[in-house]
Amino acid sequence: MSTIRVQREDRVATLSLSNPGKLNAIDVFMWESLRREFEALSADTELRCVIVRGEDGNFAAGADIAEFAQVRSTPEQALHYHNEVIAPALQAIAGCLHPTVAAIDGVCVGGGLEIACACDLRLAAPEAHFGIPINRLGFPLAPGELQGLLQLIGKARTLEILLEGRVFNAAEAKEKGLLHRIEHDVRTAAQECAQRIANGAPLAARINKQMARRLTPQAEALSSDEMRAAFSWVASQDYRDGVQSFLNKQAPNFQGK
Amino acid sequence: MSTIRVQREDRVATLSLSNPGKLNAIDVFMWESLRREFEALSADTELRCVIVRGEDGNFAAGADIAEFAQVRSTPEQALHYHNEVIAPALQAIAGCLHPTVAAIDGVCVGGGLEIACACDLRLAAPEAHFGIPINRLGFPLAPGELQGLLQLIGKARTLEILLEGRVFNAAEAKEKGLLHRIEHDVRTAAQECAQRIANGAPLAARINKQMARRLTPQAEALSSDEMRAAFSWVASQDYRDGVQSFLNKQAPNFQGK
Amino acid sequence: MSTIRVQREDRVATLSLSNPGKLNAIDVFMWESLRREFEALSADTELRCVIVRGEDGNFAAGADIAEFAQVRSTPEQALHYHNEVIAPALQAIAGCLHPTVAAIDGVCVGGGLEIACACDLRLAAPEAHFGIPINRLGFPLAPGELQGLLQLIGKARTLEILLEGRVFNAAEAKEKGLLHRIEHDVRTAAQECAQRIANGAPLAARINKQMARRLTPQAEALSSDEMRAAFSWVASQDYRDGVQSFLNKQAPNFQGK
Repeated sequence: MSTIRVQREDRVATLSLSNPGKLNAIDVFMWESLRREFEALSADTELRCVIVRGEDGNFAAGADIAEFAQVRSTPEQALHYHNEVIAPALQAIAGCLHPTVAAIDGVCVGGGLEIACACDLRLAAPEAHFGIPINRLGFPLAPGELQGLLQLIGKARTLEILLEGRVFNAAEAKEKGLLHRIEHDVRTAAQECAQRIANGAPLAARINKQMARRLTPQAEALSSDEMRAAFSWVASQDYRDGVQSFLNKQAPNFQGK
Repeated sequence: MSTIRVQREDRVATLSLSNPGKLNAIDVFMWESLRREFEALSADTELRCVIVRGEDGNFAAGADIAEFAQVRSTPEQALHYHNEVIAPALQAIAGCLHPTVAAIDGVCVGGGLEIACACDLRLAAPEAHFGIPINRLGFPLAPGELQGLLQLIGKARTLEILLEGRVFNAAEAKEKGLLHRIEHDVRTAAQECAQRIANGAPLAARINKQMARRLTPQAEALSSDEMRAAFSWVASQDYRDGVQSFLNKQAPNFQGK
Repeated sequence: MSTIRVQREDRVATLSLSNPGKLNAIDVFMWESLRREFEALSADTELRCVIVRGEDGNFAAGADIAEFAQVRSTPEQALHYHNEVIAPALQAIAGCLHPTVAAIDGVCVGGGLEIACACDLRLAAPEAHFGIPINRLGFPLAPGELQGLLQLIGKARTLEILLEGRVFNAAEAKEKGLLHRIEHDVRTAAQECAQRIANGAPLAARINKQMARRLTPQAEALSSDEMRAAFSWVASQDYRDGVQSFLNKQAPNFQGK
């Protein structure tokens, strides 16, 4: 059963993504738990740092695609799923009062990569792999999630990842600016990093984090028409075929409609 | 004779820059053809990807400097040349409905580099070389063209390129963020990249591309006074001397006026 | 005695930071001299380039922490110190009419790194080291200074530097985007770079520099409430303890209040 587990040790909390047998794919229940857990962690002023990781050797695969037929079949559902379920979870991570460190091993793709990118620091094992291979599934990245990636690595690298849909290794991820460091023992390295952060002044860390967000330039917000246009693909044949082909383990044959 | 050649094979178009004997320097005719050809390619919804390359072993030298006496001798001409000839061509590339891949070999400087930077992906041969050595010609980069470079690599790297005016190799270009990949057989690599993109869902690619542009932060637009000030160099002695020295293959001796 | 020394040779000026026995830590007198000297250099239209360096084998340590009890003990003092002393000095460097080249050796941390980042180009010796280790001193980076770093290397790398407070070497600084080049003989390399710039057209260089600043996207300015909140740490016990521990060479023990 999918779950978000939170452990605390002294002033450092560790949040673990878990969806056994599904590479920790993030289902709606997990997105909503992520939001709740991060809101609770953020409210706990005794904390100094939060580590985010996945269980059983993987960080997280993307969203749980098996759910799409149920939760993302109409434009209304897609707007709700991305803007009311995923966006608030990613905002809760990015807006957490405390510094956050992603400890990445194994698969870190799609929604998993989005969670990692919402953290302040990203350390990864050399064998971890990365990507957003949704061009084979027939849909684009939702605007809110796209914005996070653009802010981190810029338009050119974001488009390479999305247009090619390749899965790539930690060295390439670091070169693209997705990672701060590659660490052979990533869990120990994340603990040491969290300790180092925990030994600094917490008020200073919180102000640094909050002001760095505030002072990063933002594009003008999308109008509601632009937002709907960004989800126009939901009604396409290619989206239905792409997801169906994925679930049937077949190659899709997109028609552009 | 200078020309823009377009070939189509299946769902991938290849646009070739050609100005024999001039390293494919881009003259006014080619800028205008580039705009027209890209508008036509963008309107063809059967297409999935456009490759941009140069003929005869070079991508493209800069603008055709021999034309400057005729087309860029007064502030009015300079405003027209940059804002009504070059800018719309670069906008047509950047705004193309379909993903675009620059396949770069040989010389890729000045206007050639601007064309490459307007594409979504940039692959280059190891021996390709890059730069915007116009500080020796006595003029700065026009604001619209500067903005493209700033968006791709930021202010610090942009100013290094412009203030020093060095020509540099593909490894340095990649380090500066100008290139996605260095490929020994760049034409084959660009074909494979285009095929990979063509196999993804086209509506998804188009929305990803359009939204990535829309969600990239922009500086406030220049006022008309700022725009004129950005072209104040046209009246300078140094500009006239710089271009004349270049055409005479002499070293310029700039006076700052 | 602390001082800012300016030498001129032909069209290139060299400004040296000097505070003997304190690794060139920048005191209020030096910040104010920096502003004045840069305003004078900027007004001299015969100049083509300014090199900034430190004396006696170091670029510069941070601010002079021994001064803090006197000049930065209340929110009003902190606002004055950062917004009326440091910010105008950094603005005078960033806004200098002429291209600027930082030649970095030895220690380049805190305020020293801020001075380097306000220059257009940064060349460093391989053994130089970098960082902003103020999390151990109990205070965050002031908003104006944070903005300079965000613009240069983005939010993710800025937060790594601030949250961990590590001191790191030139190779890591270059990887983070803080440096343009690592040079074994950094003073000679800076001279050559300045000569190269001086040989280009000065009007072109000035317009390139001015327009690159103008066309870089900016976050909305802080309100006065936001600005005061950004300095709320001045009243904290942790700030007092952090500075005291540093001056006593003891490890701080922060309480988050």
